[in-house]
Amino acid sequence: MQALPTYDDVAAAARRIEGHAHRTPVLRSRTADALLGAELFFKCENLQRSGAFKFRGAYNALARFDAGQRRAGVVAFSSGNHAQAIALAARLQGIPAAIVMPHDAPAAKVAATRGYGAEIIVYDRYTEDREVIAVHLARERGMTLVPPYDHADVIAGQGTATQELIEEVGPLDDLFVCLGGGGLTSGAALAARALAPGCRVHGVEPEAGNDAQQSLARGEIVHIATPQTIADGAQTQHLGALTFAIIRRDVADIVTASDDQLVEAMRFFAERMKIVVEPTGCLAFAGARHAGIDLVGRRVGIIVSGGNIDLARYAALLAAEPAAKRASLESPL
Amino acid sequence: MQALPTYDDVAAAARRIEGHAHRTPVLRSRTADALLGAELFFKCENLQRSGAFKFRGAYNALARFDAGQRRAGVVAFSSGNHAQAIALAARLQGIPAAIVMPHDAPAAKVAATRGYGAEIIVYDRYTEDREVIAVHLARERGMTLVPPYDHADVIAGQGTATQELIEEVGPLDDLFVCLGGGGLTSGAALAARALAPGCRVHGVEPEAGNDAQQSLARGEIVHIATPQTIADGAQTQHLGALTFAIIRRDVADIVTASDDQLVEAMRFFAERMKIVVEPTGCLAFAGARHAGIDLVGRRVGIIVSGGNIDLARYAALLAAEPAAKRASLESPL
Repeated sequence: MQALPTYDDVAAAARRIEGHAHRTPVLRSRTADALLGAELFFKCENLQRSGAFKFRGAYNALARFDAGQRRAGVVAFSSGNHAQAIALAARLQGIPAAIVMPHDAPAAKVAATRGYGAEIIVYDRYTEDREVIAVHLARERGMTLVPPYDHADVIAGQGTATQELIEEVGPLDDLFVCLGGGGLTSGAALAARALAPGCRVHGVEPEAGNDAQQSLARGEIVHIATPQTIADGAQTQHLGALTFAIIRRDVADIVTASDDQLVEAMRFFAERMKIVVEPTGCLAFAGARHAGIDLVGRRVGIIVSGGNIDLARYAALLAAEPAAKRASLESPL
Repeated sequence: MQALPTYDDVAAAARRIEGHAHRTPVLRSRTADALLGAELFFKCENLQRSGAFKFRGAYNALARFDAGQRRAGVVAFSSGNHAQAIALAARLQGIPAAIVMPHDAPAAKVAATRGYGAEIIVYDRYTEDREVIAVHLARERGMTLVPPYDHADVIAGQGTATQELIEEVGPLDDLFVCLGGGGLTSGAALAARALAPGCRVHGVEPEAGNDAQQSLARGEIVHIATPQTIADGAQTQHLGALTFAIIRRDVADIVTASDDQLVEAMRFFAERMKIVVEPTGCLAFAGARHAGIDLVGRRVGIIVSGGNIDLARYAALLAAEPAAKRASLESPL
């Protein structure tokens, strides 16, 4: 296993991405405050370049390439935000990029990734293993593989979102973070431990796939089948070695949110806060609202992780009024 | 006619609203920049308290009430953003508020306004005149009427959005502003003239109701029938005496945008910038994109005026792919 990244790596990443990544805004909502009886600070990574926090880690990882690595290029496998983040960061740094994507990836995502100038390598998700293809490609062409979460530079880059949040609003009592493979959560934990030592960091994963919760309970990385959830960015089957080690050490707990709770949060974000948030990006707020953690009177950070969702799908989710509905939304502040 | 407000009034309003109104973020989009060949700065008043710039003018107007006015309270007539802005500003300042709303106003808007603690006075929009009712109510109860746009304190308050924008990003070459009754546009013009003297201010109104464009051409306030447009915040029938005088003096031109162009902009905001913008709030960007004004190489401000839209309606507009579609959106940066 690589050495665990530290807060110093987060601080170094912050210097590397400065002027390249957006310093995203922190939004407030009196309605949300009133719902939870707390002071909430929403760090809006849906407003980040490429539409998600992933750009931070991708840019940081590529910025650490040496001259040979830069010439040979980068490989990534992902059908989601990591692919677009690597493609964009590579283009900005003049590094060739090859992205391994499933043959049935949404046309809009393929087009966006290609639009960033990346080469698309298509595979059949039912008969081939993308990791094998990516590793093979990396060897064959001498390219460097940047995995989506279990990588020190990626984790350090993701931690900069929390660093910026705490720099802007001051110490927090609680921080809720969307959790898939654990890159964002472990980066957040590194930053929070250094900048707001008393802060409890809560990872929030989909109810349908609570592998991180199980992993903490068992003290080892638990593998699960691909979870069925609308949070497509958190359909990971297991934590990584690095993310598990950091999360076990620095995170207070892992809680879960159901798909209905994610839709409720998505509608809240649109209706009350006027921001578009993808299902995965709704995990943190849904967890803060429903996981039964007492937040009354506390200062609470919420990392809104991304906003990349097909418009037709987004429209359909907004239109479908969830069961647990309006009542709670009718006392605006 | 009252004396015209000046930039000094905008600066004074900025001091009054500080700490009460949000200093809203300015967002960038490389995709939008590439589409127009310009540097665009989006001032996001959809992220303002009560969901629209209207809070600025409302708060400023109420902050100038004397003790007697504060006790007697405020009256406003509006089925839209001005109503909610007055209701919220009044509550924050401990002033009683009565809002005159049509009997068939959307339940969500009535609930939101009542939620802010305002008294709702219902009228029949087919048989009664809301202005007459409001004036009568003001006289009867000794309350002060704050009209939605033709009022010096309201105009000065709206100007603070442009002041903040220019303070944050520096001088602009062009500024596009959504135009209904002209409160936002005339406030913007006052601020731009003082802070960025070379800046061309463009008002953008719905194609279906170009009364301001006609008014400038004729040199007098033109009245039109209520225009049929999805930009419900710009369904005004005429400019006010104050807004007309300022716009005539300080605005470079008035252009228009069609409903299809507004939907296209709304989808762009959701898909590319991850923000929820109501149809009226899309006017400025749609005008910048389609009105034929050469913006290449220029620094352009876009005032995104608000984000209040019924979710079901928003979902329907996002889902309905407009005729002029995807091609232009498929080269993300």
